[in-house]
Amino acid sequence: MLSKSQINLLKSLQQKKFRREHGLFIVEGHKSITEFINSAYPVEAVYYTPSFDSKMLKLSQKINFCEISVTELERVSSLKTPQDALALVKIPEWPVLQHEQLKGKFSLVLDGIQDPGNMGTIIRIADWFGIDSIICSEDTVDAYNPKVVQACMGSLARVKVHYTSLIEFLSKIKLPVYGALLDGANIYQTDFGKEGLIVMGNEGNGLSPEVQKMVNKAITIPRIGKAESLNVAIATALFCSEITRK
Amino acid sequence: MLSKSQINLLKSLQQKKFRREHGLFIVEGHKSITEFINSAYPVEAVYYTPSFDSKMLKLSQKINFCEISVTELERVSSLKTPQDALALVKIPEWPVLQHEQLKGKFSLVLDGIQDPGNMGTIIRIADWFGIDSIICSEDTVDAYNPKVVQACMGSLARVKVHYTSLIEFLSKIKLPVYGALLDGANIYQTDFGKEGLIVMGNEGNGLSPEVQKMVNKAITIPRIGKAESLNVAIATALFCSEITRK
Repeated sequence: MLSKSQINLLKSLQQKKFRREHGLFIVEGHKSITEFINSAYPVEAVYYTPSFDSKMLKLSQKINFCEISVTELERVSSLKTPQDALALVKIPEWPVLQHEQLKGKFSLVLDGIQDPGNMGTIIRIADWFGIDSIICSEDTVDAYNPKVVQACMGSLARVKVHYTSLIEFLSKIKLPVYGALLDGANIYQTDFGKEGLIVMGNEGNGLSPEVQKMVNKAITIPRIGKAESLNVAIATALFCSEITRK
Repeated sequence: MLSKSQINLLKSLQQKKFRREHGLFIVEGHKSITEFINSAYPVEAVYYTPSFDSKMLKLSQKINFCEISVTELERVSSLKTPQDALALVKIPEWPVLQHEQLKGKFSLVLDGIQDPGNMGTIIRIADWFGIDSIICSEDTVDAYNPKVVQACMGSLARVKVHYTSLIEFLSKIKLPVYGALLDGANIYQTDFGKEGLIVMGNEGNGLSPEVQKMVNKAITIPRIGKAESLNVAIATALFCSEITRK
């Protein structure tokens, strides 16, 4: 059974302010919880309902497993249709990224992505294409937002999401900076080489003027038809596909 | 002002059954409505609030423009935050597609896509890549569903979405049929030629066994990282990108 203070804590974690205060976030559902248990993330507790696969209970002795009722889960879940369990996971503090760690590979940089669904899809795309670091501006949606965690489908357990000042970060890292912009070079005719940063901008406004100035090469996905724009997660997938296809 | 029967009609169109019965669907917001007015779709009426850009009212004499209050719009809108107008548009009856119309180009075939957001994004992707026909199995989500129309951002005005028996359709059309499947040929090493059908399957189950049998060439997007799957709209975008990049 959950105490009143546990219920309050779990519910409070739907808000970024309280996630940062407690250094905790919530992962829901058997599959995603398994991915976090098998990752570098410290899982503090798993609250499970009677229908939960009990084999998982032996997975780790460090985790506090606690059976709760379906009604209790409904009370603390952020989902309309809660699954069979909910885990309390520590927000990791990734060490500041250094040039050495990003050399010889591609990483994603997100400048002000706002939609949790897009953010979750982008993390999943990074995971598919083997990109292990995403560097976000401070105003990018929180990766530990329950909607992002849900949309990630466990990929957040493998892809490290950093929040920092992009200006500071980009001025420190000496790698090619490719920016998704209008009127840039055709993505299909661009040789991305073996390493670099791919910068994607906000859904409505694209890259901020300050970040645009730090882009070495503007890249455009040519439009053949008439749609006004491509969704940012779709554009990210096309960039990831192009850098890895060779 | 809206009559009670108008309110009932507009609200009923949130359900597929009534959309088919009346042959009508709803488009919301200034931008999307403009795209439909400038398309082959017959727009029957536009219900607009005082904040609506009145220049549009002169766009067509065939359309019944009718001012309503914000409260009235809130009553009939399917959006949490209604925009400035709502249009009543006729569902077109596209003539049955013949082989001749699909020759020399690529079209998308959707087998049981369920999520309205994915459907809307796929229509937008088709529009971006200049694909003008999407052929859907009967159990694919309705393209005139308000959530699909919303996610399309006007692209539905340009891309024709057909619903039919895929088995019948695929046996009639003599074009290469590429299917998104596991263990197929590497998409990056595939020469798609100049024409064909790209078949994408249901979010959870992929292609149905009957449709799989009609696929000439199974194609796979290689996974480099560890994500279990790619979202179907993302996969569709990667296929569209590959067929048009050459």
